[in-house]
Amino acid sequence: MTAISQLGEQGLLQLVQAYALPGVVGDDAALLPMPPGESLVVTTDVLVDGTHFSDRTTSGYDAGWRAVAANLSDLAAMGASPLGVTIGLALPLDTPIEWVEDLYQGMAACLGRYHTPLVGGDLCRAPVKTLAITAFGSVQPQGAIARSTAQPGDWIVVSGPHGGSRAGLELLLAGPQAAALPPDPQVQTQLRSAHQRPQPRLDLLPHLQSLQPAGMDSSDGLADAVLQICRASGVGARLHTLPMHPGLASLPEAIAQDWTLYGGEDFELVLCLAPQQAARLLAVQGCQWIGEITPGSEVIWQRPDGECCRLLMEQGFQHFKGDFADRQD
Amino acid sequence: MTAISQLGEQGLLQLVQAYALPGVVGDDAALLPMPPGESLVVTTDVLVDGTHFSDRTTSGYDAGWRAVAANLSDLAAMGASPLGVTIGLALPLDTPIEWVEDLYQGMAACLGRYHTPLVGGDLCRAPVKTLAITAFGSVQPQGAIARSTAQPGDWIVVSGPHGGSRAGLELLLAGPQAAALPPDPQVQTQLRSAHQRPQPRLDLLPHLQSLQPAGMDSSDGLADAVLQICRASGVGARLHTLPMHPGLASLPEAIAQDWTLYGGEDFELVLCLAPQQAARLLAVQGCQWIGEITPGSEVIWQRPDGECCRLLMEQGFQHFKGDFADRQD
Repeated sequence: MTAISQLGEQGLLQLVQAYALPGVVGDDAALLPMPPGESLVVTTDVLVDGTHFSDRTTSGYDAGWRAVAANLSDLAAMGASPLGVTIGLALPLDTPIEWVEDLYQGMAACLGRYHTPLVGGDLCRAPVKTLAITAFGSVQPQGAIARSTAQPGDWIVVSGPHGGSRAGLELLLAGPQAAALPPDPQVQTQLRSAHQRPQPRLDLLPHLQSLQPAGMDSSDGLADAVLQICRASGVGARLHTLPMHPGLASLPEAIAQDWTLYGGEDFELVLCLAPQQAARLLAVQGCQWIGEITPGSEVIWQRPDGECCRLLMEQGFQHFKGDFADRQD
Repeated sequence: MTAISQLGEQGLLQLVQAYALPGVVGDDAALLPMPPGESLVVTTDVLVDGTHFSDRTTSGYDAGWRAVAANLSDLAAMGASPLGVTIGLALPLDTPIEWVEDLYQGMAACLGRYHTPLVGGDLCRAPVKTLAITAFGSVQPQGAIARSTAQPGDWIVVSGPHGGSRAGLELLLAGPQAAALPPDPQVQTQLRSAHQRPQPRLDLLPHLQSLQPAGMDSSDGLADAVLQICRASGVGARLHTLPMHPGLASLPEAIAQDWTLYGGEDFELVLCLAPQQAARLLAVQGCQWIGEITPGSEVIWQRPDGECCRLLMEQGFQHFKGDFADRQD
């Protein structure tokens, strides 16, 4: 294991430049063509070792994959196709070179899957590994997805199951519920992968082009997404069915429901659209109806036994995002 | 003095959101119209307390101003007009609220001067104050300034004097040469201000529109800029006169020359263009001819006494920038 201090600054720069789009490195800034008539979409995250990732559950590869996936998911949540990302990396001098290579390989793998170039960045020294990522994309102005346009009567459709990422984390941490999850190695791999290698739902964008849904991604949990949409749109919602990941079926019911609603980091899209348009979306594999938008402001989950639960907001703000909570994943 | 831990996450988010462009906060990403037919330009920096700023010489206000100014200067160096910036901020819990407010006020002051909105960001906890800034702008594709298009016979023009920022730093640090700088308080204020409140040369862009210069900014020093342009263009250069800041005239000659060539952080533009086009640029106040591009690869400063000095590269890479050197400013 060799520290980056032994590689030297030029060596480290050459290492990371190898992952960048050729032709854009060398000027003061990256220059990229824009699709004509489209608007620019920009999102940014700062990830700090010990808060957002840790060697206990996250390799450099997975930290890189997840950082890219989370930002591409923010683009997908706006209906935007990615144009590129920049990476700012602050590292202690004793960081192993292998960790840096692993990080860039994870980022490059996720970027490559979604045909997105790394177009630049910055490297510097810091007491703790810190990763600043900015993703930018483009969208036809009339195709941009907002949180604020849901209307009473809209159906709520999710792009896939929820709770899988939280279950994968439980397996990785060997948490108290790990033994209650299916022993089948294939299912366990699927759950771990849901946590370690989330897939931003950019594949859904072609299906959304003429639908003009309201929506966002479920990175902070399904309940959070429904609550954020309702708050921004001045409406309520009633959920009739939870899109539970099938791998959670063997868990105690209350835990499976909690992880489905509040687990977070599933990076699916939560979309609200008029029923006849929702029906077209439900023809897409994995998409699932979960309820409808209502007048008022109450966000309710109507359980199979008829009891109604009010959903709770765990996090309050987005876009200017904050993360001072004591969370390790 | 109150720590941000007492303000709480929501309070801190509200504090910083007050500086953001209304209307873009609230979705997963910022959505901005693009000027039709223009290309996107993106640049990013990571700044860490103790490496890029320190309480010894830099208030929160100045750290904010300089971070914004450096990134807007990178846009100017590409010929691009700014569209917006995002700010990722990682902070220790004991950071004074006043420092955060000061930082945002400094950023807002510089952004306001250049009519550039803050369009989003991210906040999280870290052991050391870390600021990640991304600036994006737009440019007509044919108006983009590159480093790689300088040609033998081009004149080299700088947009203003050099060495002032380095002299201001000497005053702020009360360094060994501080006593040799002019005692006139107005000059001292001007030098300090050159270091603390640099001005990105976006004002020059209208004058450059039809000129198609090669060039970059002099953030890493005048010598570095000339060397980078020559290396990227496969040419040499001969400087005949140094654009020395008048405040350096009382210094020992060797030091004044060194600061002019290598001081850095003057954030002027260094441009190479055909003589008849350069003549038009020289009509703009502050612009100054310093030499010409030559065949070959030697970058020479021909001193007034006729002696020739070869200029030295201090930093090797740009765009994927690195900063592991032991520099405090």
